[in-house]
Amino acid sequence: MIVMAAHATPSDLKAVVARIRLLGFTPHVSHGRERTIVGVVGHETDSDLEALVALTGVERVVRVLNDYPLASRDFHPADRVIEFANGVRLGGPEVLMMAGPCAVEGREQLEEAATAVASAGVRVLRGGAFKPRTSPYSFQGLGEEGLRMLRSVADGLGLLVITEVVAGEDVDLVARYADLLQVGARNMQNYRLLQACGAVDRPVVLKRGLSATVDELLQAAEYILAGGNQQVALCERGIRSFEPSIRFSLDITSLPVLKRLTSLPIVVDPSHAAGRSEYVPAIARAAVAAGADGLLVEVHPRPSEALSDGAQSLDLNAFSALMVEVGKIAEAVGRRAA
Amino acid sequence: MIVMAAHATPSDLKAVVARIRLLGFTPHVSHGRERTIVGVVGHETDSDLEALVALTGVERVVRVLNDYPLASRDFHPADRVIEFANGVRLGGPEVLMMAGPCAVEGREQLEEAATAVASAGVRVLRGGAFKPRTSPYSFQGLGEEGLRMLRSVADGLGLLVITEVVAGEDVDLVARYADLLQVGARNMQNYRLLQACGAVDRPVVLKRGLSATVDELLQAAEYILAGGNQQVALCERGIRSFEPSIRFSLDITSLPVLKRLTSLPIVVDPSHAAGRSEYVPAIARAAVAAGADGLLVEVHPRPSEALSDGAQSLDLNAFSALMVEVGKIAEAVGRRAA
Amino acid sequence: MIVMAAHATPSDLKAVVARIRLLGFTPHVSHGRERTIVGVVGHETDSDLEALVALTGVERVVRVLNDYPLASRDFHPADRVIEFANGVRLGGPEVLMMAGPCAVEGREQLEEAATAVASAGVRVLRGGAFKPRTSPYSFQGLGEEGLRMLRSVADGLGLLVITEVVAGEDVDLVARYADLLQVGARNMQNYRLLQACGAVDRPVVLKRGLSATVDELLQAAEYILAGGNQQVALCERGIRSFEPSIRFSLDITSLPVLKRLTSLPIVVDPSHAAGRSEYVPAIARAAVAAGADGLLVEVHPRPSEALSDGAQSLDLNAFSALMVEVGKIAEAVGRRAA
Amino acid sequence: MIVMAAHATPSDLKAVVARIRLLGFTPHVSHGRERTIVGVVGHETDSDLEALVALTGVERVVRVLNDYPLASRDFHPADRVIEFANGVRLGGPEVLMMAGPCAVEGREQLEEAATAVASAGVRVLRGGAFKPRTSPYSFQGLGEEGLRMLRSVADGLGLLVITEVVAGEDVDLVARYADLLQVGARNMQNYRLLQACGAVDRPVVLKRGLSATVDELLQAAEYILAGGNQQVALCERGIRSFEPSIRFSLDITSLPVLKRLTSLPIVVDPSHAAGRSEYVPAIARAAVAAGADGLLVEVHPRPSEALSDGAQSLDLNAFSALMVEVGKIAEAVGRRAA
Repeated sequence: MIVMAAHATPSDLKAVVARIRLLGFTPHVSHGRERTIVGVVGHETDSDLEALVALTGVERVVRVLNDYPLASRDFHPADRVIEFANGVRLGGPEVLMMAGPCAVEGREQLEEAATAVASAGVRVLRGGAFKPRTSPYSFQGLGEEGLRMLRSVADGLGLLVITEVVAGEDVDLVARYADLLQVGARNMQNYRLLQACGAVDRPVVLKRGLSATVDELLQAAEYILAGGNQQVALCERGIRSFEPSIRFSLDITSLPVLKRLTSLPIVVDPSHAAGRSEYVPAIARAAVAAGADGLLVEVHPRPSEALSDGAQSLDLNAFSALMVEVGKIAEAVGRRAA
Repeated sequence: MIVMAAHATPSDLKAVVARIRLLGFTPHVSHGRERTIVGVVGHETDSDLEALVALTGVERVVRVLNDYPLASRDFHPADRVIEFANGVRLGGPEVLMMAGPCAVEGREQLEEAATAVASAGVRVLRGGAFKPRTSPYSFQGLGEEGLRMLRSVADGLGLLVITEVVAGEDVDLVARYADLLQVGARNMQNYRLLQACGAVDRPVVLKRGLSATVDELLQAAEYILAGGNQQVALCERGIRSFEPSIRFSLDITSLPVLKRLTSLPIVVDPSHAAGRSEYVPAIARAAVAAGADGLLVEVHPRPSEALSDGAQSLDLNAFSALMVEVGKIAEAVGRRAA
Repeated sequence: MIVMAAHATPSDLKAVVARIRLLGFTPHVSHGRERTIVGVVGHETDSDLEALVALTGVERVVRVLNDYPLASRDFHPADRVIEFANGVRLGGPEVLMMAGPCAVEGREQLEEAATAVASAGVRVLRGGAFKPRTSPYSFQGLGEEGLRMLRSVADGLGLLVITEVVAGEDVDLVARYADLLQVGARNMQNYRLLQACGAVDRPVVLKRGLSATVDELLQAAEYILAGGNQQVALCERGIRSFEPSIRFSLDITSLPVLKRLTSLPIVVDPSHAAGRSEYVPAIARAAVAAGADGLLVEVHPRPSEALSDGAQSLDLNAFSALMVEVGKIAEAVGRRAA
Repeated sequence: MIVMAAHATPSDLKAVVARIRLLGFTPHVSHGRERTIVGVVGHETDSDLEALVALTGVERVVRVLNDYPLASRDFHPADRVIEFANGVRLGGPEVLMMAGPCAVEGREQLEEAATAVASAGVRVLRGGAFKPRTSPYSFQGLGEEGLRMLRSVADGLGLLVITEVVAGEDVDLVARYADLLQVGARNMQNYRLLQACGAVDRPVVLKRGLSATVDELLQAAEYILAGGNQQVALCERGIRSFEPSIRFSLDITSLPVLKRLTSLPIVVDPSHAAGRSEYVPAIARAAVAAGADGLLVEVHPRPSEALSDGAQSLDLNAFSALMVEVGKIAEAVGRRAA
């Protein structure tokens, strides 16, 4: 919709109408008391109508429809469910718990954590082999060796594996070891990576960027869907705010907003949002109460010795307690933690 | 704590130390390999040590302690409870439900809403008589006439009344009609109003400003506490973020943060955070799951006809459903809605 | 403009149209391929059309026109100029320099600062007598005694006075001593104060709230203009962002945005935005380069001893240097500092 | 620096001290009246001390030193200058103007724009061949064909070329055609890409992420510097804020902040910050006034027909006018536009 300026002349309007026609759209002109408005209906995704603001006399261009046809609930009204061979589901009646250490540091640490989360009832093991770190001097992960450990430890316990992939060229490698691929917040708009995820036969959990709008998150998901991979889940993990007491502000409202706009499953990562382990249980409970389909939780046998994200990792006792609390909330909303 | 610059000279350091002594503090100098740091311990609230950054060679001044001794949990470790004559409590084991229309528009609308919320189990009626509105052309409330209606309708149903006060000079007037005073987000740093609230014998629910940090909220509460009124509750109602799909982003993480820093009761207002009624239930459930001691919910008999905040008001059916949902979450965290 | 949901039924649409008619507007229905849109043109300020989102089948309500007719450039196309008895102008070809200490601390400090800024060419003295402070334990200003000092020192040097007013009930008092009233960022939506400013015969410099949008700033100005006071200037002083290295992020882009939307003069306060004196000159130069009509600068004889805002106050030498730099930039944009 | 909680026990403190020693650091314990603080000085970049917050009794971990030794001004006090074969410099006394279309759309459009910017005095041509676009359905650039056009058109006019690289695997390809590589805001934390940029012999202009702090920007630059490439410039292009009237808020204060923390040259991109061409000149002037060493400006022969970023591209006349304005500001700060 194009809003003409108060001082726009008839010939300004004519130029706008002509340009819209040239782009293949049908303009609808409405003359109001204070403003003239030109409506344009069509496949707005084909073209960048926003450039029309550069024409004389145009005050604003307002987009009315969304730009993510495949991700939209309009396109796929029923909630989508991602199903795994062993019966695990993401997006179904269960709230899927995915837990494990931030980074795979070694076989021993991984086994200790994996055994504990499995015994608490978790069926999906998380762990990072490729770690995107703010500082070049921080631990960057064990790479393929870490992937091998993840797979082997998970297989020993009958767990699925979710792990992060950080570059398009790594997608096939990671997909050989993992059951779910995770795209991190800093890579939400790494389009080469998204395109590679669109071409692989693995479900992808796409994390919302630190300052990405809901609309941008859905457009990023659209890259994967448009590539042919329909197994996409979104993950809210906190947005950047002005508040210094927390690392990121979990945008809890995004859950009902996303549920309205899309039928893709929604995961919440309370650990990265909190930045501090003692805040994790409250955020995890809130997420499930608000409708999350799954949680991604960082657990470490000895958080104060972790090579990354120790501050926000739960120890094994705290995680067991969390599982009980989350289970009760899941029941209160008619689901169950699994 | 004062961090000296890498290039600071010994005489820069001497000047800083001298200035700290002159302010009545004891400096502790630590020479590190890369930087010299001067620690200052004392009642930091007495003075603005931040001005020391203006001295040559000072790189940064880092505040370590908080500036709200009375609001701090250090000062008052046990959760504080506000009790009312009729047995209603805020901060106790119950999650206190406060509900009603955004604005008192007339006797009929108020009675209809109040009767409905009372029959759903609510014991505190909310309603605005003085409305702070963004536009000077919007409905500004009925003033004292609205207060009278609130009191009379509430008395007829055995309800308590919470209503907003927008100026220091109105505090006594509003306190004659209301059981709880509410200070709105836009007035969180209206210090004249806070001082007046400190001098009145009524509990005050202080809403967090749209971009106020947790620290600033606690310092605002400190104004009321320092004035002598110990009955203060804080209210999270959403912060300003970059996300356009919602009016405000409810900062759910602030609940565990506040619970750690203070023992004052915490209320959540899901209606203003959502800006749209269909998002209210998810946010309300999340708030209770995260530890809220009370909820403030906007309810209107016919939201599409409301003179203010219609978009975010629940109708009577939706509110009844919400009460049931919230009750289940309250139980899941070992409390009950009241 | 009302955007109907994809799944809206004909009877949903009928209800929306009926409701718009009932509100006294004329609806224009456009049926697009994917959505139906209902345009409403009229005095949108009369009513809160946003409540229509509560009707079944309505997806969104998009506001097209602004809500500040008096502040709008449409209403008053030519740049507005505020003129003072001594020939000083705000909004004319000069860039008006207003400088002085954050707070009036005493006669001596004020005289020293005022003499220095006057000798550097400044004709408007700033200084706070009523100080809104984050902590109740910080210095709160000298009150009327401070106003008296300001007036007397300014008169001795032939300066105008600008000072802050923090409550509606103080407006008449402050107006007896000051030539310009300043409304602080934390009070931008203190509507009682704005209304009092609308009824007084003094120019008002209205500061943008820490997280106020440009639209909200203009609506706040509308309160003063609608009250009958046409002498309003706006002040950009930094907005809250996620960046921890600065106190506030000066929103430099708001200058051309405001210049497009309104003809009211625009002042910039580089001191509060910076939070640290060494950043002030760069921000001050940028503001003038971007079109600011005036600057409000904090100057203190000995910043490290200031009772408030010492970290961001310039000392007298730094201020003299700033005046020279700003003068050059003013010339580069075809104006002059005055 | 580790701040112990008020309730921390002596044995909590002992555990913290022991853990710090185990990590190879020397702890300095200071007992204050209200809190005990443990200072740790050393190469903090070696390890993640933040995990210590997971120990019992630790309230906060405050980082005092920066994490970017190579990027820091402490390491390299004098302003760094990037020099090119033809005498063009970035970071020297000139303000380097880089201009051209957002995307290379075809030979004709590129030649027209390049000829115009060259005749206005510009010596560095910008143009995108690989375009990171929010929507998968938007024009994604011409790829290597676009690079070839850029090189050939630039050579014909004696211009240098700056163009964006979006993936680590493309760095060598792009470096064959371009004189400067540009890393976009969405890729600021694409570490694989940064590492590849660290290994190439081309200057890199690294754009600040949409919500990246200054500290994170400098740590991202550190990735390139640590890889061995010392020719890095930083680019401020606007940060995400709550303000809906602009696309991004140019963080003008970051210029003096960056100048204090690093000696790397600073470029500003006024086009992406503005999102609308009429705001570009004011922002460009402000940037130069605040100390920018270069500008990146989008110019298009016919903005309303551009395949990307038309709304914010200047047409050829507007760009010529901008060059004159910027030249005057550059002189006012003792430099010259080149």
